[in-house]
Amino acid sequence: MPIIVQKFGGTSVADIEHIHNVAQKVKNEVDLGNQVVVIVSAMAGVTNQLIDWANAAVSDHDDREYDVIVSTGEQVTSGLLALCLQNINVDARSWMSWQIPFQTDNNHSKARITDIGTTAIRNSLNSGVVAVIPGFQGVSSENRITTLGRGGSDTTAVALAAALAAQRCDIYTDVNGVYTTDPRIVSGAQKIEKITYEEMLEMASQGAKVLQTRSVALAMRYNVRLQVRSSFEDAPGTLVLNEDEIVEKETITGIAYSLEEAKITLRGVKDRPGVAGRIFGSLADASINVDMIVQNVSENGETTDLTFTVGKIDLSTAVEVLGELKDEIEFANVTTNPNVSKISVVGVGMRSQPGVAKTMFTTLADKGINIQVISTSEIKVSVLIASDYTELAVRALHSIFELDNPSQLES
Amino acid sequence: MPIIVQKFGGTSVADIEHIHNVAQKVKNEVDLGNQVVVIVSAMAGVTNQLIDWANAAVSDHDDREYDVIVSTGEQVTSGLLALCLQNINVDARSWMSWQIPFQTDNNHSKARITDIGTTAIRNSLNSGVVAVIPGFQGVSSENRITTLGRGGSDTTAVALAAALAAQRCDIYTDVNGVYTTDPRIVSGAQKIEKITYEEMLEMASQGAKVLQTRSVALAMRYNVRLQVRSSFEDAPGTLVLNEDEIVEKETITGIAYSLEEAKITLRGVKDRPGVAGRIFGSLADASINVDMIVQNVSENGETTDLTFTVGKIDLSTAVEVLGELKDEIEFANVTTNPNVSKISVVGVGMRSQPGVAKTMFTTLADKGINIQVISTSEIKVSVLIASDYTELAVRALHSIFELDNPSQLES
Repeated sequence: MPIIVQKFGGTSVADIEHIHNVAQKVKNEVDLGNQVVVIVSAMAGVTNQLIDWANAAVSDHDDREYDVIVSTGEQVTSGLLALCLQNINVDARSWMSWQIPFQTDNNHSKARITDIGTTAIRNSLNSGVVAVIPGFQGVSSENRITTLGRGGSDTTAVALAAALAAQRCDIYTDVNGVYTTDPRIVSGAQKIEKITYEEMLEMASQGAKVLQTRSVALAMRYNVRLQVRSSFEDAPGTLVLNEDEIVEKETITGIAYSLEEAKITLRGVKDRPGVAGRIFGSLADASINVDMIVQNVSENGETTDLTFTVGKIDLSTAVEVLGELKDEIEFANVTTNPNVSKISVVGVGMRSQPGVAKTMFTTLADKGINIQVISTSEIKVSVLIASDYTELAVRALHSIFELDNPSQLES
Repeated sequence: MPIIVQKFGGTSVADIEHIHNVAQKVKNEVDLGNQVVVIVSAMAGVTNQLIDWANAAVSDHDDREYDVIVSTGEQVTSGLLALCLQNINVDARSWMSWQIPFQTDNNHSKARITDIGTTAIRNSLNSGVVAVIPGFQGVSSENRITTLGRGGSDTTAVALAAALAAQRCDIYTDVNGVYTTDPRIVSGAQKIEKITYEEMLEMASQGAKVLQTRSVALAMRYNVRLQVRSSFEDAPGTLVLNEDEIVEKETITGIAYSLEEAKITLRGVKDRPGVAGRIFGSLADASINVDMIVQNVSENGETTDLTFTVGKIDLSTAVEVLGELKDEIEFANVTTNPNVSKISVVGVGMRSQPGVAKTMFTTLADKGINIQVISTSEIKVSVLIASDYTELAVRALHSIFELDNPSQLES
């Protein structure tokens, strides 16, 4: 019998009424003849209450005890969903991490999965019982409760789907799929039926916050077919798949944007070996992620300008770090600009279709939009522009790459 | 190093501020050179919230999932207390039931303890780490979370004290000890310094609701020295001990009363063998506890009257059960009286001091109080009287048996 893994996030299990609704969605998969494994998040407000208590107890907490406290939120939902399933005559039971066991390393509060026991759950599934599993947590080699950190429940779901060789892993959320771009900006944005892992990674990390990057990367590695779909309607969502499962590939799959980055320029940097390594090494040591990097050709052979982007929340720390390096690496000054937007055109089809970058740059130029930084990969082209032009750029690119919904265009 | 087990109930861990206070009490025992094991209940309102959710999910729940849900309350407190202890430089960690392991049978929501692993906790204690353990729960032979039912945290504490051969098990609560009688009725009631297990059982089951009967019985069986003391003051409480540890025994230790029973009288019962067995068997089948029983001598050799008491909450069910038996066992009628009070004089000393019953009956008669039913054991005499006379009877007996605080008498 095929195994389907379903994951329901916080908005899907907000309260008891929502959990009853989730039970019905589980029953639908059971009625289709599937074995079902369900991953649940904590109910609305529960995790925040637990975190508030932990913070009220101490300012600087022991992650091991913090994990003991915050992991209870999902544990409660797993018991409640098992009860709601039994209530509609679906045989179900909850499985704690230590019962599975769902093994992780000892890196509390941001643990990584090391091994998942499947025998007990398989036996239970084979006897017709739905498995309900609290997301976001595991058990360490020291037999203590760990949590997986941000987006952990998506990762739990994908990892279990991989371990159980599930036919599909459905991520239920409050949107009904992944769109060609943000529908709040472009009313003609269309739901994407199928998208590759690589594209999804670009879309997600560029600001289309539907799936956590970590869970998409894991799905790609283990070839888990993901589906992003809505808890609140019955239509199919967006399938995230391997490229070879998508027969007809569009050149461009979507347009992503991110307002969460800031630009830093170091002017008059002494142009000698090791300088870039020293700068970006120091930023990395301060846990600051650097995204786009441009280094101008040294004009006089002595100094150069270095431009890069960091997360807006890291901007002040980054400036501090650079200040501490000033004497050592020698540069004229640092300028920063938080009013920037990164616009990305994403699509695996661009590998075989040259000219995407040219079309992108021309379109933006036609609208009078200046490009500050460019970065590219095999399947995307990203540019940094002034944030005031975000909507204009996204709409123009969505249109030029023919992503607008035809029915919207007619009307 | 001596091991001290401390148990803190719901009022003692009501909120984070209270948990900080508990941490200080734990530190005090550590500073005295003890190894400390702490059992905690859930914070105020937490268990009720969990129960409300479970009841909102389904009307008739699976006890296994119910246990998964409600056990999280104590789990949260255990993590929080460990954090608060670390905050005042006391090395501490939480221990979940399955980590200990704290084994029970599979009787979910009212499980009984079968075995307690001590190696891991002992090693941790020996390395100077306080063990914080969620009360009221265990893990079944099927590796699922169980709960011990009402008063379960006291039982957890006593069982661990027995398993670890602890020097003492301190039950912290909102009263500072066991009193010779209810201080709300007799202002001169005195805190008892030492009381035997047997007396405590009689006092507790008679209405002095300080310790759960089950935990006292367990302490008696394994000879665990118990102390009932206050979370909110520093004075010593009441020690519950083996009789041979109490050098000077008072004849009478205390006066207990209970307003929670009701009287049932069956008149004109056909006096033939097997009738009493049939009646009390049927009540037991309906889970109704019968306490005092009096059968009058059959006057004409044909019929008799049978009087007994049941819990007030069971009265209507008991009458139903008896109604169903009417044709079979033949009796004239059933009368009930919920307006009764059971008054008990308790003390191990009465074994060697005859005349306690006589003093009790004479004292009540002098006050014009009619005795409806009498029952006795080796260490107590109980009578059933009209509930209006409760305070009068308790005061008179407390005085005649010289339990009043001398300083109160002088003033």
